[in-house]
Amino acid sequence: MPIEPTPVEMHPQRWGTPSEAPRPALPDSALGLVEIVFGLQDRPPVEGATPPPSRLDDVLLDGLRAVVGADHVLTDDATRTLRTRGKSTPDLLRARAGDLDDAPDAVVRPDGHEEVAAVLAWAVEHRVAVVPFGGGTSVTGGLAARRDGFAGLVSLDLVRMRRLLAVDAVSMTATLEPGLRGPEAEALLAEHGLTLGHYPQSFRHASIGGFAATRSSGQSSAGYGRFDAMVVGLTAATPTGTLRLGSAPASAAGPDLRQLLLGSEGAFGVITSVTVRVRRAPDVTSYEGWRWPSFGAGTDAMRTLAQAGLLPTVLRLSDESETAINLADPSSIGGADDPGCLMITGYEGTASFVDARRAAVGAVLADLGGTPLGTEPGERWAHGRFDGPHLRDALLDHGVLVETLETATFWSDRERLYADVKAALTSTLGEGSLVLCHVSHVYETGCSLYFTVAARQADDAIAQWQAAKAAASDAIVAAGATITHHHAIGTDHAPWLAQEIGDVGVRVLRAVKAELDPAGILNPGVLIP
Amino acid sequence: MPIEPTPVEMHPQRWGTPSEAPRPALPDSALGLVEIVFGLQDRPPVEGATPPPSRLDDVLLDGLRAVVGADHVLTDDATRTLRTRGKSTPDLLRARAGDLDDAPDAVVRPDGHEEVAAVLAWAVEHRVAVVPFGGGTSVTGGLAARRDGFAGLVSLDLVRMRRLLAVDAVSMTATLEPGLRGPEAEALLAEHGLTLGHYPQSFRHASIGGFAATRSSGQSSAGYGRFDAMVVGLTAATPTGTLRLGSAPASAAGPDLRQLLLGSEGAFGVITSVTVRVRRAPDVTSYEGWRWPSFGAGTDAMRTLAQAGLLPTVLRLSDESETAINLADPSSIGGADDPGCLMITGYEGTASFVDARRAAVGAVLADLGGTPLGTEPGERWAHGRFDGPHLRDALLDHGVLVETLETATFWSDRERLYADVKAALTSTLGEGSLVLCHVSHVYETGCSLYFTVAARQADDAIAQWQAAKAAASDAIVAAGATITHHHAIGTDHAPWLAQEIGDVGVRVLRAVKAELDPAGILNPGVLIP
Repeated sequence: MPIEPTPVEMHPQRWGTPSEAPRPALPDSALGLVEIVFGLQDRPPVEGATPPPSRLDDVLLDGLRAVVGADHVLTDDATRTLRTRGKSTPDLLRARAGDLDDAPDAVVRPDGHEEVAAVLAWAVEHRVAVVPFGGGTSVTGGLAARRDGFAGLVSLDLVRMRRLLAVDAVSMTATLEPGLRGPEAEALLAEHGLTLGHYPQSFRHASIGGFAATRSSGQSSAGYGRFDAMVVGLTAATPTGTLRLGSAPASAAGPDLRQLLLGSEGAFGVITSVTVRVRRAPDVTSYEGWRWPSFGAGTDAMRTLAQAGLLPTVLRLSDESETAINLADPSSIGGADDPGCLMITGYEGTASFVDARRAAVGAVLADLGGTPLGTEPGERWAHGRFDGPHLRDALLDHGVLVETLETATFWSDRERLYADVKAALTSTLGEGSLVLCHVSHVYETGCSLYFTVAARQADDAIAQWQAAKAAASDAIVAAGATITHHHAIGTDHAPWLAQEIGDVGVRVLRAVKAELDPAGILNPGVLIP
Repeated sequence: MPIEPTPVEMHPQRWGTPSEAPRPALPDSALGLVEIVFGLQDRPPVEGATPPPSRLDDVLLDGLRAVVGADHVLTDDATRTLRTRGKSTPDLLRARAGDLDDAPDAVVRPDGHEEVAAVLAWAVEHRVAVVPFGGGTSVTGGLAARRDGFAGLVSLDLVRMRRLLAVDAVSMTATLEPGLRGPEAEALLAEHGLTLGHYPQSFRHASIGGFAATRSSGQSSAGYGRFDAMVVGLTAATPTGTLRLGSAPASAAGPDLRQLLLGSEGAFGVITSVTVRVRRAPDVTSYEGWRWPSFGAGTDAMRTLAQAGLLPTVLRLSDESETAINLADPSSIGGADDPGCLMITGYEGTASFVDARRAAVGAVLADLGGTPLGTEPGERWAHGRFDGPHLRDALLDHGVLVETLETATFWSDRERLYADVKAALTSTLGEGSLVLCHVSHVYETGCSLYFTVAARQADDAIAQWQAAKAAASDAIVAAGATITHHHAIGTDHAPWLAQEIGDVGVRVLRAVKAELDPAGILNPGVLIP
């Protein structure tokens, strides 16, 4: 098994591990561009901050040590710092400012379902809030639980639960523990010639449990589907007891309770294993670029493919602004006056599948007015597909606010939603800000929209972003779209979730929460408005 | 709009409308076969039975009349008889015996969401149980709600809610009212060149609301998917208020609450509209037969297709027994000593899709050892695809007990589940009984198993079936499979649902029920164990 005993931690103020640290530096040419557009500021992170002292005393923690062993109840400052919040830009801005107020009082590392259940029982008994921790990559405040009314807050770290529990090569399923990071899960499956095919931008650090708890969707969703579509079964430990779900690929045995735990963000229970549909690892991968004269023409082509049931494995389209910025990358600038919109199509599978699908999709795209750009743009995208967050760190160092948000809607509302969200962001961030967008997930009936913004940081960059985010969120809900297609609710989206599912929907969530977690210890303030 | 003001009712003791009545007669040759296998009995239905008097008095009903109008509150015996129970064999046996004890006290026909909500408010106020009624085709006791503890029981008939509310030809969605029968919905969609492609055996009489509330799956599920996979949005009236769900094709905004209402069987609320993904009506349909040397070889081929992402629109496989019985049909008997197992493959879509898919699937099937039988077996299947229930009526007339049950599991458990359920049915029904099986729904990770049994009726045929059904259900749960793939829980499956989802799962369902229907008026005893 190629899995290290302990995965390398991400830097508490940046995305990525120390070995990835060199990446944030911007090349001089990019620095020049940033200076022209935003003006350079020097905003180095505060170093040497320490979290507040743990509020949980040794007598209390002895109960936890009895469950998981003394080695797995950690209260040192470094460990608690590493379990403080997630990786949204506001999270990073707080971390960079030395604000560690949200640090957990302890980090507990149970091994296995029974230990998780025992930790929850301990937490209920002592009224301690529990924040399940997988990869720590939340970008919606999913790790910033409310602690008022509790004796303390512990981070329930799933790092010891990183095993491939079972492979069923006939049914093409695998049972995975929740703490496995994306690359670890893929490495274990690769030993069996299998793959999940789930590659969100957070892939290198995010965990299987997190994928399930947040309804994650990866960059290859056109071919492999959303993570929630891959899950055929799961086990969860809740304060009320154990839930074991998934007796068949599909069922009419009442409501699909799997779909209630998927997206529950640790507020209903801790997912202790998931059984997922797997695929044969691809023999061939091939990524290409296509040029479209406009974002509308490109999205229409995506819709045609989705409704024809003729999708590549990867299908994404940048709008005019994002395309122009990508081409401004010094390594690829080509002097195109009107670059149009760049589409990436990727094909993964057997050689015959890749050849046939690429030919069929290519014929449709050419017929609809797309211009093939060959493999170079595709390979470039594939090479950098997980690097966006590093660029954000580098830009934050130079006083540029960078953040993303995403939504999804039905095809007929796509144009309006795009315009409304873009207008909301532009008007709140002001002149000189950049608002970029791409479509990266498509369905027969609609698609996602993923926005990236960049602006010169104001003195209070958090408030600056929150105003823009609130305006965009209001526009999303007003358009009848979803507040998040694949980043979950966390604490940041909770007010808009209430508008999206209505009062009765919120009451249903609260009723389930009250049944499974009557003491309310699990991720208080996360998910439930 | 081709929709009649009132659909023609099914016969209260049989499947189908009066115009379909001639069908139940068995041809002489089949009669002879029945006599040899089971011995002929004469078991004609009791005629002229009347339901018990309505327990709801006029003063109480005046409140209901104020909501929906006096014309739409019906207490006559004929109407109440037509709303008594569903169409399982035990339901029919009771109806044939003149047992109308489960008749509702009144039938109320609201028009629109607001009227449905007002009916629920009236029912809460007066503690009257409410049974939502769509097509009346439940085969799991879904219309036989418990009435003890209530002042009475009304059938909430959705017959006036049969409109196509919206078509979005860009997003390829349609919004349908719940009372629309299958053929009505298809006729309305056909005016727009669209189809749902949802063809369960109950298609001619079952309703859109019922499809949603029971997680129905149709004979073309390989191509069009399950009904719950088609639903992108829905509106439900609950005693607590209105739920409006579905802001995008897919979302990470918490648990998917749509999946909680799908399969809720009227116990959480009344679905008042559903927005479904639609497809272009097919230009071409083509059905074929294939012969396999064994059920195992045929199911392996189905698995290969499902895992290759290369499915026909229709894919079904009869086991050796079902194949032999089908070939014993006097119009098609061919003297085959070893008929093997018959597979039906169907293709629907554009001519180019049908041609290409048929060629690709055919190549795989031939490679795996299948023998093509041409279009005749396929066309014969398509011609009789909705007729099974008529044959059941004819056999019941002659003292033959006929019933079905179905389940689903993962591929690696398929063989064991098949053997265990077959053994349970055979051992309880005794010598001379027939147990047939087919696979009609496949997934990458598993498939359904649909069993049909026939046996000489004992004196107490209901008890005879219940013993066999209990043994089969125990075997299903013991094998870790689902108690129902597409027939829902109703009252019949509730004890086994409790085993399938466990105590905590049941508590979740009860918590949701208590929140949405605190007075417990909605379908009491249905779904929730």
